Amino acid sequence: MMRFGIIGTNWITDKLLDAGSQLENFELTAVYSRTEEKAREFAAKYNVKNIFTDLKEMAESDLIDGVYIASPNSFHCEQSVLFLKNGKAVLCEKPSVSNSYELEKVINTARENNTLYMEALKIPFIPTYNVLKENLHKVGKIRKVVANYCQHSSRYEDYKKGDVRNAFKKEFSNGALMDIGVYPLFFVISLFGIPEKITAEGLILEDGKGIDGQGTVNMVYNEMDITVLFSKITNSYLPTEIMGEEGSLLIEHVSEMDKLYFIKRGSNEKTDLTLPRKENSMYYELKHFVDLYNENKKESPVNTFSLSLEVMKILDTIRGKIGIIFPADNKK
Amino acid sequence: MMRFGIIGTNWITDKLLDAGSQLENFELTAVYSRTEEKAREFAAKYNVKNIFTDLKEMAESDLIDGVYIASPNSFHCEQSVLFLKNGKAVLCEKPSVSNSYELEKVINTARENNTLYMEALKIPFIPTYNVLKENLHKVGKIRKVVANYCQHSSRYEDYKKGDVRNAFKKEFSNGALMDIGVYPLFFVISLFGIPEKITAEGLILEDGKGIDGQGTVNMVYNEMDITVLFSKITNSYLPTEIMGEEGSLLIEHVSEMDKLYFIKRGSNEKTDLTLPRKENSMYYELKHFVDLYNENKKESPVNTFSLSLEVMKILDTIRGKIGIIFPADNKK
Repeated sequence: MMRFGIIGTNWITDKLLDAGSQLENFELTAVYSRTEEKAREFAAKYNVKNIFTDLKEMAESDLIDGVYIASPNSFHCEQSVLFLKNGKAVLCEKPSVSNSYELEKVINTARENNTLYMEALKIPFIPTYNVLKENLHKVGKIRKVVANYCQHSSRYEDYKKGDVRNAFKKEFSNGALMDIGVYPLFFVISLFGIPEKITAEGLILEDGKGIDGQGTVNMVYNEMDITVLFSKITNSYLPTEIMGEEGSLLIEHVSEMDKLYFIKRGSNEKTDLTLPRKENSMYYELKHFVDLYNENKKESPVNTFSLSLEVMKILDTIRGKIGIIFPADNKK
Repeated sequence: MMRFGIIGTNWITDKLLDAGSQLENFELTAVYSRTEEKAREFAAKYNVKNIFTDLKEMAESDLIDGVYIASPNSFHCEQSVLFLKNGKAVLCEKPSVSNSYELEKVINTARENNTLYMEALKIPFIPTYNVLKENLHKVGKIRKVVANYCQHSSRYEDYKKGDVRNAFKKEFSNGALMDIGVYPLFFVISLFGIPEKITAEGLILEDGKGIDGQGTVNMVYNEMDITVLFSKITNSYLPTEIMGEEGSLLIEHVSEMDKLYFIKRGSNEKTDLTLPRKENSMYYELKHFVDLYNENKKESPVNTFSLSLEVMKILDTIRGKIGIIFPADNKK
C-alpha cells in the first residue's frame, strides 16, 4: 500500500484520484489546500480525514508515503524539494519545474535523500506508446516529424474579457509552451533524443508582456527534422505524423495516444495499431509510480531524471528564443 | 482562337493539352523538342503538323500566338524571354524561373514587348480556392497556418540506386523546394502576403552537394505564423490547416484544392465547402490565360507579376537559409 497526500484540488487531481481508485495499493490519506475550507471540502468528497493548510507539516507527517503535486508550475520546485527532503516520494505534474536550474535542484535533492521522484508526463506509459516504438522501423528512414498539440483554452475567452485565470499568469510559469507544448516536445525527445539545432517562434500575448499563446519549434537532427506546434488560442485538427521514406505513423491526440495508424507508402490503407486503454489515461503513470515505490526504486526507468532534464533544457532554449521569461528565472 | 506552341513533351504537357481540348478557343499548332524524333512522335499523337527543333525559329514563326513552357526550371527564363521578345504570349510552368533576378528580366521583357506573361501556378484558379477566400473570416482571428506538400517521388528510388533523373538534378534548378514547396508557399503568400521574418531548414542530399530532398519554413506575420512543409522523399497525410480563434479550415492536397472543410470551434462537425471541379485541375488556369489573351490583357489580375515576384524572392531567401545554390544563380 502507498499512502498519498495531494497538493492541488482541481480537475487534474480528481482525475489522478480516479486512477488511484483503480489501483489496489493506492490510498489517499491527506489533502492540502491553502484554505482550510477548500481542503475540508475536497477531503470530504474522498472521505479523507487528514487535511493540511501547512505544507511543511504535511511533508513531515507520517500519514503519507508520497505526494502528488498538481499546484501551479512555479510551485513545483519548492514543493518537490520540501517533500523529498522529508523522505516522501514525489510524483509531480508536468512541466516538472520552471527551468533546468530548478530541476537540477530537485534531482539532487532526490538523490541526496535517496527518495523516489518522477515527472508525471503520462505519454510513455500509455500502452499504445510502446506499440509506436515497436513499429517505428516500419516507416523506414525517418525524415520528418510534425508533433502537434493546439487546444483552444476556455480560459482564453475569459482572458480576452480581462479575467486572467492562473493558466494565463506568467508568475505561475504558465503559457502554451509549458502547459501544452511540453507534451509533443517530451514525446519527440523521448523517441529521438537531443536535436543538433533548435529554432523557435512564438506569440507573446499582451504586446509581449503576457504568457505565450502559441508557438512553433523546429528541431534539426542528422538527416531528419521535427516541427512541434502548440497553442492555447486555437484548436488544430491535424494528427501528429512521423514520416519515413517507406510510410507514415499518425497519432491522434498525442498527449493521450488516442489513436495510432500506419500507412505504408504506395498503399492507401490505414492500419489501426491502437491498443485499447483505460478511459483514464493517467492510470498507467500512476501504476508505474506506485510499483516503483513498492519495489523500493528511486528513479523511473521510463521518465528518467535525464529525460526530464533534457526536455527542461530544451524548454529553456525555446523560451530564450521566443522571449518567455518567468519570475522564477530570476530566483537563481 | 489562340494558337499554342508547346515546349516539353512529358506528362504535364499531356495534361495541359487535355485541358486545352476542353476549351473552344485553344488550338495546338506547334511542338518543340530538342530531337526531331521526339517532336514528331509527340506531334503525331495530337495530329499537329508543325514541329520545331530550334526554339528561335518557333518563337519567330507566325504559326503560334502563345507558348506553354514545361521545360526544366533552369530553361524557363531564357525561353520566356525569347518568346516574349517575339511577341508570343507565355504561360510558363511553376516555378516561374530559377531566381528573382531572372524573373525581373522576364517581367521587364513582357512589359517592354507589351506581351502577356503568366506563371502557371494553378491553385488560385481552382473554384474551391475562391470559396476558401470567402470563408476565411469564419475562423475568426487567424493565428497559425500549416501548409503542407510532401510527396515521395518515384524518381527518388531511382536516385538512391544511382540513376539521377532530371527532377533530382541541381543544374535544372530542381529540388523539393522549387518543385513541390512552391505550391504551399504560393498558396499562403497569395492569401497572407509577405512575412516579417523567415526561418528555414532543409535537407540537402548527397552530403550537401545535391538537391534539397525536404524542408520546413517558418514565416512570422503580425500575431500569426505559418509553417510550410515540403518533401520529395516522404509522403505526408496531413492536410493543410488554417487555424483561427473560432475554428479551422482544412484543405486536402493544397496543390489541387481537392477538399475544403470548415470546423467551428466547439463543434465536431466538419462542413464540406468543396466545389465540384473538372478532373483536370489545369483547366482553370489555362482558360484564364486564353481569356486574357482574347481580351488583349498583358498581365493576369490573379497570378500577377508582383505575386510571382514576391514568391520568387521568398524562394531566394529560403534557398539562402537552407543553402540551395543553383548554377543559374551564378549567371547574373
